[in-house]
Amino acid sequence: MERGEFDLIETYFRPLVGGDICLGRDDAALVSEEQARCCRLVASDGLTAGVHFFADDPPEAVARKALRVNLSDIAAMGGVPIAYVMVLMVRDKTPEAWIRAFAEGLRLDQALYNVSLLGGDFIAGAAATSIAVTMMGESCRENPLCRSGARDGDDVYVSGTLGDAALALAVRGKSDDAFLRQRLLCPEPRVALGQKLCGVASACIDISDGLVAELGHICRASQVAMAIEAEALPLSESFRAVAVPQQLTLALGGGDDYELAFTAERGKRRAVASLAEACGVPITRIGTVHKGQGGQGGQGGQGVRVYDAKGKAMAIKQEGYRHGLNMTL
Amino acid sequence: MERGEFDLIETYFRPLVGGDICLGRDDAALVSEEQARCCRLVASDGLTAGVHFFADDPPEAVARKALRVNLSDIAAMGGVPIAYVMVLMVRDKTPEAWIRAFAEGLRLDQALYNVSLLGGDFIAGAAATSIAVTMMGESCRENPLCRSGARDGDDVYVSGTLGDAALALAVRGKSDDAFLRQRLLCPEPRVALGQKLCGVASACIDISDGLVAELGHICRASQVAMAIEAEALPLSESFRAVAVPQQLTLALGGGDDYELAFTAERGKRRAVASLAEACGVPITRIGTVHKGQGGQGGQGGQGVRVYDAKGKAMAIKQEGYRHGLNMTL
Repeated sequence: MERGEFDLIETYFRPLVGGDICLGRDDAALVSEEQARCCRLVASDGLTAGVHFFADDPPEAVARKALRVNLSDIAAMGGVPIAYVMVLMVRDKTPEAWIRAFAEGLRLDQALYNVSLLGGDFIAGAAATSIAVTMMGESCRENPLCRSGARDGDDVYVSGTLGDAALALAVRGKSDDAFLRQRLLCPEPRVALGQKLCGVASACIDISDGLVAELGHICRASQVAMAIEAEALPLSESFRAVAVPQQLTLALGGGDDYELAFTAERGKRRAVASLAEACGVPITRIGTVHKGQGGQGGQGGQGVRVYDAKGKAMAIKQEGYRHGLNMTL
Repeated sequence: MERGEFDLIETYFRPLVGGDICLGRDDAALVSEEQARCCRLVASDGLTAGVHFFADDPPEAVARKALRVNLSDIAAMGGVPIAYVMVLMVRDKTPEAWIRAFAEGLRLDQALYNVSLLGGDFIAGAAATSIAVTMMGESCRENPLCRSGARDGDDVYVSGTLGDAALALAVRGKSDDAFLRQRLLCPEPRVALGQKLCGVASACIDISDGLVAELGHICRASQVAMAIEAEALPLSESFRAVAVPQQLTLALGGGDDYELAFTAERGKRRAVASLAEACGVPITRIGTVHKGQGGQGGQGGQGVRVYDAKGKAMAIKQEGYRHGLNMTL
């Protein structure tokens, strides 16, 4: 980089700081008391080149994905995202145009999701581009959506379609399907949906690490089991059009689908249908919660059984998705 | 790594989560309303191997430094650190012993500084080890310490000694001075001092990017200038004992000294002396604030003049310290 970090920060990142929430920042940002009181949700996820994105991905998309994976975490809790801090590490000699485009991606999503940058750290000379974002948000009502509320007899739902991002990765360079590519590059966090699920869903999670693995977390936290019908899984037209071996495993185990999986009482079916319409997001019922132990530890989807069209339990190879696993504590 | 990320998280990081602040965590951590209201300070700094530490540094020290650089930011605002989130990126095949030692470093400093882990992200397969920490803290009184309060006639002070970390880096492999090594590896954030400076100091900053550059930030924010006396700079015995060319530049411009530089009215000299004693931290008066423009932009220490023993202004080569520059917005 020709210009010093300080100049780059002043030019590209300083203008992104603001909003009512930030009263000022010196070594740390000072948040208004009113806003601080609201910020009860804190999510922190990172991306690094070669693991979560490719070094030659468009910088705008990388920036947006860094925000969106965190927005998705807030969405899974039913929260309203408010503000974020960011540590950006880049390689030496990163072109200024890259920085400019990255900042533009942040700006676009700040406007779209109504979040403010509070501050952070900009580091040149890293071995690879990495971004760590901490997103703070307001929790819905007293009790946010959590993983532990699923009960015997509840329905299991998922938003959007499954496996698109994993398929896009599998056929990268071989298929030019724009929809799949976009699903991998720049996922849509279900922020509005998450908020509307408060009071409707009994448990919720984002499926960034793969549907079955993430449903396994709900099973574990709720001490239940689940039966999922493979035939019911929502698959996009693009997903169906591009055929690869073991395609169903991508839908069941592939990561980077920033959709919400949730459970709700049977009596809530009408409510679920109407909020799907209100948000303009397809929601599909894919299975049922039943009594069971849930799993203990492990990264697989213990407690989750997937049945084929004939009602036969399928053998699911559960490796978990091997990108950065959320610290699901 | 032989074990999956999930197992490692459960074994080493899950036990670190807790404290009264965290009511639970699923995709995001849920903070208690009372604690959220207090958490008005947010600092976020990262470290990456090859820039901020060496790949073969002891993992405990790396973990502690990752916390401490952020604790130092909270200290510079006079705040009380409360909780943090962390994104940890490691290379593939990082030995489990490294992870265990890293977590132990976190545990030690959590106890020492009374902070809790809220959650975060653990990523394997990164190009280099990187850690991004977001530290939240309580602000002192209504108005925290900031950079903009320095006034004509104020004294300029600094805590501890200067240049030790930069010198340790310069003589790495050539000197085995344990004090210098420790100053670089595992700095001591001046958390207690920062809190006591509320109501005493007129402006404060941590000097992680070098004394003159950081004093320049105070000058800019306060629209003042400063005269610093080189003879007054506090230097450790180890610093004096290990001679290198241009040593004074290390004290004036070297980074990674997580000391506090601050200004205070002349009438506060007794108060400053007594809080130095109360905290057990040496504090040295090194100069005076006077009228001036401060600098505009740039990463140098505009507005700051350093005078030698004969009262002659010294030419300071101001490159700023080239590790990760804080996003000083």
